[in-house]
Amino acid sequence: MKFVYEHRVRYRECDPMGVVYHTHYADYFEAARTEALRNLGLAYKDLEATGVILPVVELQISYHRPCFYDDLLEITTLFNAIDRMKVAMDYEVRIKGEDLVRVRGKVTLVFVDAEKRRPTAAPQMVLDLFQS
Amino acid sequence: MKFVYEHRVRYRECDPMGVVYHTHYADYFEAARTEALRNLGLAYKDLEATGVILPVVELQISYHRPCFYDDLLEITTLFNAIDRMKVAMDYEVRIKGEDLVRVRGKVTLVFVDAEKRRPTAAPQMVLDLFQS
Amino acid sequence: MKFVYEHRVRYRECDPMGVVYHTHYADYFEAARTEALRNLGLAYKDLEATGVILPVVELQISYHRPCFYDDLLEITTLFNAIDRMKVAMDYEVRIKGEDLVRVRGKVTLVFVDAEKRRPTAAPQMVLDLFQS
Amino acid sequence: MKFVYEHRVRYRECDPMGVVYHTHYADYFEAARTEALRNLGLAYKDLEATGVILPVVELQISYHRPCFYDDLLEITTLFNAIDRMKVAMDYEVRIKGEDLVRVRGKVTLVFVDAEKRRPTAAPQMVLDLFQS
Repeated sequence: MKFVYEHRVRYRECDPMGVVYHTHYADYFEAARTEALRNLGLAYKDLEATGVILPVVELQISYHRPCFYDDLLEITTLFNAIDRMKVAMDYEVRIKGEDLVRVRGKVTLVFVDAEKRRPTAAPQMVLDLFQS
Repeated sequence: MKFVYEHRVRYRECDPMGVVYHTHYADYFEAARTEALRNLGLAYKDLEATGVILPVVELQISYHRPCFYDDLLEITTLFNAIDRMKVAMDYEVRIKGEDLVRVRGKVTLVFVDAEKRRPTAAPQMVLDLFQS
Repeated sequence: MKFVYEHRVRYRECDPMGVVYHTHYADYFEAARTEALRNLGLAYKDLEATGVILPVVELQISYHRPCFYDDLLEITTLFNAIDRMKVAMDYEVRIKGEDLVRVRGKVTLVFVDAEKRRPTAAPQMVLDLFQS
Repeated sequence: MKFVYEHRVRYRECDPMGVVYHTHYADYFEAARTEALRNLGLAYKDLEATGVILPVVELQISYHRPCFYDDLLEITTLFNAIDRMKVAMDYEVRIKGEDLVRVRGKVTLVFVDAEKRRPTAAPQMVLDLFQS
């Protein structure tokens, strides 16, 4: 189960070395994740409206090669595990048209009751979506 | 009535030309404004707790000279007008130790009832603070 | 001469009031401008490769109504003036499908010799593109 | 060998849940690292001037508890390993005055020849600084 999100690198995202500053990849992952979930049938906004939020509890990024200004990136989200309490996703960043993975990421999110601010079980509709 | 806030330019704020990317100045103004208000006796957090927020309705920035990585900036907030409905502030950005103003800004904020999301009059305590 | 760029509002761009934090619009304008120029036949990367850069010297934003998380925005770039030394553009931000302009912007950019860091005349190919 | 950097949480860094959006911690680490190195006697700007840069190749963040708007944070940098090719640092984020570590991070940086864009050995002066 994977989804490819495209992003054009912006000037403001590049540093004096002319490459994407490393912290922006975490933001790319957010955009990619949101669209991957929407593609699955789950708009994060709708999940939030049910009182359940999905904060990041673990983030890991490995930077193998830089990306540059105006590069058209493909950020691939791979759903690799889900249980009642959390979801884990892997990310791969490529320049469109290339096989080389330049940056790899891994994010773990937990289901949280927005009001109580405590971990909660995933809503059944979310589990059903991931199952199918 | 003015207040000087210091900020060290970060690598992530500089673009491939080696200068501060222009949109970051608006963020510097936010930090400078928050500390200027705190210095006046008004923590924005406390204002918000009374149900009144102070969103920006007008922003203007003139870029005269660039600033560079690791420069220690002085961002001066000048309160230039306040009435029951809004506050206007001017900003000047200098490299510490220099007279030259590199960037100038102007921001107008309005008092808004956070719940109704409609303009409201400034709380009396705020007017008193600005008066004194 | 106008161009419409679409942007989905990200969670990280929204503040505790649930609305787009005001400084992000300046970043939206950058993305909109880059794509508007590309659509015109001018990739900013190619301009830069000729030794000419186009920094922002003046920015003005008026915030009329907020935008919210996950809104699909239309950022319209309107080229309203160009001469040998500078280009001015207007921006309008709408939620897709609505007529209401929520945010308006105005940006002035100048042609600068990247090496000398001094104003320069626009390359002829740029003037030709804007003329046509 | 450790260094404590203070940062006041800004409004723009907080999301609709009222907490610091998770990607900002990576930016806090950058600021903390820069000041930790400066405190050690190594301004990153001076290192860069010798033709050696220090990009991040690995980033890991664990989010245990949220931080909130206007919190005064203490970001502690702990230098835990350095060899000729790379430096590893740990980070701990606390609200000033508390013992509880809310966020933990780990960053690995490599010495890179800025012109060749290839790994290089740490300059002797850097090794000497870390030794002492």
